[in-house]
Amino acid sequence: MRATVYHGPGDVRVDEVPDARLVEPTDAVVRVTHAGICGSDLWFFRGQSRIYEPGMRVGHEFLGVVDEIGTEVRTVRPGDHVIVPDVYSDGSCEFCLEGLTTSCLHGGNWGRWGDGGQGEAVRVPQADGTLVRLPEAVEADEAKLKTALLLTDVMATGNHAAVSARVRPGVTAVVVGDGAVGLCAVIAARRHGAERIVAVGHHAGRLELARRLGATDLVDSHSDEAVPEILELTSGGAHCVLEAVGAKESLRLAVAAARPGATVGWVGVPFFDSPDWFEVYKKNLAIAGGMAPARAYLPELLGAVEDGSLDGSAILDLTVDLDRIADGYRAMDERRAIKVLVRVA
Amino acid sequence: MRATVYHGPGDVRVDEVPDARLVEPTDAVVRVTHAGICGSDLWFFRGQSRIYEPGMRVGHEFLGVVDEIGTEVRTVRPGDHVIVPDVYSDGSCEFCLEGLTTSCLHGGNWGRWGDGGQGEAVRVPQADGTLVRLPEAVEADEAKLKTALLLTDVMATGNHAAVSARVRPGVTAVVVGDGAVGLCAVIAARRHGAERIVAVGHHAGRLELARRLGATDLVDSHSDEAVPEILELTSGGAHCVLEAVGAKESLRLAVAAARPGATVGWVGVPFFDSPDWFEVYKKNLAIAGGMAPARAYLPELLGAVEDGSLDGSAILDLTVDLDRIADGYRAMDERRAIKVLVRVA
Repeated sequence: MRATVYHGPGDVRVDEVPDARLVEPTDAVVRVTHAGICGSDLWFFRGQSRIYEPGMRVGHEFLGVVDEIGTEVRTVRPGDHVIVPDVYSDGSCEFCLEGLTTSCLHGGNWGRWGDGGQGEAVRVPQADGTLVRLPEAVEADEAKLKTALLLTDVMATGNHAAVSARVRPGVTAVVVGDGAVGLCAVIAARRHGAERIVAVGHHAGRLELARRLGATDLVDSHSDEAVPEILELTSGGAHCVLEAVGAKESLRLAVAAARPGATVGWVGVPFFDSPDWFEVYKKNLAIAGGMAPARAYLPELLGAVEDGSLDGSAILDLTVDLDRIADGYRAMDERRAIKVLVRVA
Repeated sequence: MRATVYHGPGDVRVDEVPDARLVEPTDAVVRVTHAGICGSDLWFFRGQSRIYEPGMRVGHEFLGVVDEIGTEVRTVRPGDHVIVPDVYSDGSCEFCLEGLTTSCLHGGNWGRWGDGGQGEAVRVPQADGTLVRLPEAVEADEAKLKTALLLTDVMATGNHAAVSARVRPGVTAVVVGDGAVGLCAVIAARRHGAERIVAVGHHAGRLELARRLGATDLVDSHSDEAVPEILELTSGGAHCVLEAVGAKESLRLAVAAARPGATVGWVGVPFFDSPDWFEVYKKNLAIAGGMAPARAYLPELLGAVEDGSLDGSAILDLTVDLDRIADGYRAMDERRAIKVLVRVA
């Protein structure tokens, strides 16, 4: 089969690789139909990853059709259209039962030396715990299908930022970051009832999309006046701050934008040393969040996609075929695209 | 009057200084009877503070008697015995009303270029918001009076660690640090219902005191096996971790001791760059806490001192007169004393 392989910085290729196959009786093999390129994929693409080595398979956001199942798989059958969250998990360990599927005792990641989502098929361990069937209404509708693809990672991550920041009806929320996760965080803040949502970023077009998705105020993060402007808009800082980047400067900005006693929900894969800890200390901020348990959020979010109340399709602003996936990486790297949908089958 | 003045690293002296006096109509002047030396005072004593300069006054933990009040002061009268929390606050601003007295819009610190608690008298701004009268039962009992002195700072800080770490009945809590704050955190964890309390430190005598105060298990933080031992004792990490030091290594230890999804309550004045953020991210830890709002906790904690359910007097294991305060600093610096009570009048 064909799958995307990392060959080195700036170099991903679609190579012929061994076919995905069942190994454990709890596995399924899923033929991929749609995959996403994630902002975090740019890390290895830019040579900034500590994890990826040439030869590794990539991609952790995908939808597909079940092709084969192991003898112990009970919840899906061949032919089922499924959504596959960004890590696999057994659904039954103590952490999964608490909703912390990212800490599953028998879970793991896609890609690396196993199958990646940016390929024709994937061996899915822990199929019963991991896979969720796509409702027909979602499968049949292009916008809903696109939003379903976002649920595998970035929309779950935006939701996790809102949950972690304790966004609740009536609050003012600041969202730091206008990438795909930041835009999803705006949607999530709105869904959780924030009355005022200040989107902070530095791409005019993305900030305008943030406004269409629910932001009430826009702030240019590159302006010297960004912090005073946010403090002015929020009367001294927001109760809820959603940090959707994972860089040192964005976390500093999030801490500066927080009102004393606030909660900062942070969900960007961390690429920093520290915020200003003395400020965190003095303001009694809670910093909560981490890697989003996408699988745990799927039932609720997929329901909202199905009933039409959750639509993030505009975030996937470029579509490429698997053969042209390198173009998709370059478009995201050069910020010509917010997020790329890869049509696999 | 006489008051303790910082002259440089290792050099604190009791000097003649201008008398404390009323400035604003909301001020009181308090004659100090008892003061504490705080672990955080060792920072300037060791020359590690970014804030203190020679000539500054010191001390932020004290009890005393009201000497004079301004024309607008309503809640205390001359002759009242009072407890004075570690920062002053108006008791009426939006943050005070939320219990975040450390973020008071009209609050401030003791010492520096104003009066410090380690002296004969102190001008107390915002007297109505700040001062709390000592119940007679507390004033008349040596152990209760000592514990009341702890409430000005370290006991409130231990309590804040427990509140921030969301200690609740039945949980397992890990307390990192066996200094005065760590010992108070053990007491607080027990008061908040923790069933198992693992105290982590490296002074055998202090760990034994931790056991007397409620710890069920003791771990030597300097052992190479500290983390595996904690993980073994807590079946994979604690739900609640109380970080009572504020150093880089202690925060790393706290993060390592936390179960995925746990909350780390951190209350040590931060003296570090960062914990391992990737571990925080992967484990979805919430890090909450900061500077303890001692004034907000006073009514509850003072009630517990009065009824005898809260006794931390053993933590104050050395008493000196004001004239010998430098000996007290040295005893704490050399770890011959956990915490020093300074008898002023």
